Amino acid sequence: MSSVSSPDTPQQPDFDLDAWVGQRLTQVERALEQWVTADAPQGLDHGAPAQLVEAMRYAVLDGGKRLRPLLVLAAHEAVQRDGQASASDVNAALRAACAVELIHAYSLVHDDMPCMDNDVLRRGKPTVHVQFGEASALLAGDALQALAFELLTPQDGSVAHATQAHLCAVLARAAGSAGMAGGQAIDLASVGLPLTESQLREMHELKTGALLQASVMMGACCGAPAPQAVAALQTYGAAIGLAFQVVDDILDVTADSSTLGKTAGKDADNNKPTYVSLMGLQASQQYAQDLLHRALGALECSGLAQTRALRALANMVVNRAS
Amino acid sequence: MSSVSSPDTPQQPDFDLDAWVGQRLTQVERALEQWVTADAPQGLDHGAPAQLVEAMRYAVLDGGKRLRPLLVLAAHEAVQRDGQASASDVNAALRAACAVELIHAYSLVHDDMPCMDNDVLRRGKPTVHVQFGEASALLAGDALQALAFELLTPQDGSVAHATQAHLCAVLARAAGSAGMAGGQAIDLASVGLPLTESQLREMHELKTGALLQASVMMGACCGAPAPQAVAALQTYGAAIGLAFQVVDDILDVTADSSTLGKTAGKDADNNKPTYVSLMGLQASQQYAQDLLHRALGALECSGLAQTRALRALANMVVNRAS
Repeated sequence: MSSVSSPDTPQQPDFDLDAWVGQRLTQVERALEQWVTADAPQGLDHGAPAQLVEAMRYAVLDGGKRLRPLLVLAAHEAVQRDGQASASDVNAALRAACAVELIHAYSLVHDDMPCMDNDVLRRGKPTVHVQFGEASALLAGDALQALAFELLTPQDGSVAHATQAHLCAVLARAAGSAGMAGGQAIDLASVGLPLTESQLREMHELKTGALLQASVMMGACCGAPAPQAVAALQTYGAAIGLAFQVVDDILDVTADSSTLGKTAGKDADNNKPTYVSLMGLQASQQYAQDLLHRALGALECSGLAQTRALRALANMVVNRAS
Repeated sequence: MSSVSSPDTPQQPDFDLDAWVGQRLTQVERALEQWVTADAPQGLDHGAPAQLVEAMRYAVLDGGKRLRPLLVLAAHEAVQRDGQASASDVNAALRAACAVELIHAYSLVHDDMPCMDNDVLRRGKPTVHVQFGEASALLAGDALQALAFELLTPQDGSVAHATQAHLCAVLARAAGSAGMAGGQAIDLASVGLPLTESQLREMHELKTGALLQASVMMGACCGAPAPQAVAALQTYGAAIGLAFQVVDDILDVTADSSTLGKTAGKDADNNKPTYVSLMGLQASQQYAQDLLHRALGALECSGLAQTRALRALANMVVNRAS
């Protein structure tokens, strides 16, 4: 368990995470570039829906960290038998990786709107509604959600129907009222209210955790993992999902705005409950490390051989600087 | 072809549309009541996501005409072999009927928001954002779209995976940038601009037509229609989809607000292009009848035996009073 007890030190000298990430990002960016595009009718000369597609592309093709796609691909790598996946499964995993990113991207577009967080900057650029107007931002988010499910259901025989159905089910549930949208509703209702730690955890498990966990499970869907592995990946995904938010709260007070690419200290200014406001900085940092240990421990019990990327991503999530 | 040449007269003395509709509406309302409900976590005591679910239910369970679900079920009836469908197909069709209604309902919620049409009344009730606030309306719409795809992908073996995948594909495409959302983007960009008839048709084919046609095709997906029948149903769906909008434009100038349940004359006041403003009232009325003939003609060439409900619904769409 030495790799679990000291997660801050590099544990996989033979594994080059940067190279692994670089290769996957190239695939994902190329796929998004191709799929978030204009097979929308272009016939009218009023610039729409071309403008809608432009807003969708602006929202997606902006150099996000692509954590969710990376989790999909890392989980898929972990469940491959003999390190080999069929072309169909590889295709499914890449589609799943892009689909979950589209859901994430749409949620940011809607979340930034004036009636929600009213943010004008995202990753150093004007937010979609600032750039294209509120109505276009609303529609672009809506269309991105639909596109996610379209990506998951190619009608050319390239992905098994059972995989398509399973991927849609996992993603829909994680995005909806029992997942991300539900968590955002709790977040809205919680501003200025005292929350217990369990209430805060429940909010984040839905708002951020559900989609991160779904990313892991969607990667697993594209293979045929044993029940023991499925359970381990669920634990891993839940721990990583929560850790991501705890670290987000820590960085909101420890990092500066230019490092974050967004306004630091905003949660505190908005009187939003955070782990740091609730537990204090040091206990939050310890909690993040505990969650990392839980995630890595789950992988050790998973029966999966190829978990190097999942382990490295867990480390990256918890020990990131922005 | 006498049934086609005089669509205003009752053509199916043996078919009681009201009874057929009544039975189907009972099924659909019961299913929506059950499915748009609170398996969202209820643990927090801040009223959310319970409030989110409440907003979703408010948006859906409000006595709409349910035209889209009826089209799904009528098309499914048409493609049944020997008038019999398996329990799995019946389940799939009811899920498809509800899913398409959820997409329609979410589009109304978002369409009514201040940044879009800024409507305060819908079917005589305050719109969702008036009742629950803009942020909740935004999230409720988002969650309804996710729920549509969740409904289509039950993980209990009750619907064949191929059917689930096909239904998701058809619905996602009809809802997205190449369908409903794309049409709304064109609509936004077209206010106050002169449109040709072909441009107006393209806008409506996407904005309203795509989802109506998808309803028909989703019903067909829940059976195994011959290619000839699929082509006929596509023609039927396209004609009905366009006719629906032409009649909508006609009613906007001929009906009063209390009959419509919404503000009459609003399109003209907003300087929105309509069929009536473009073609005149009489030519629009003739066009609606022409589209009805096209829809009924397609059914006659479909090779399908049981098209009575589809025929009756086509008549209802074109000859409706509200």
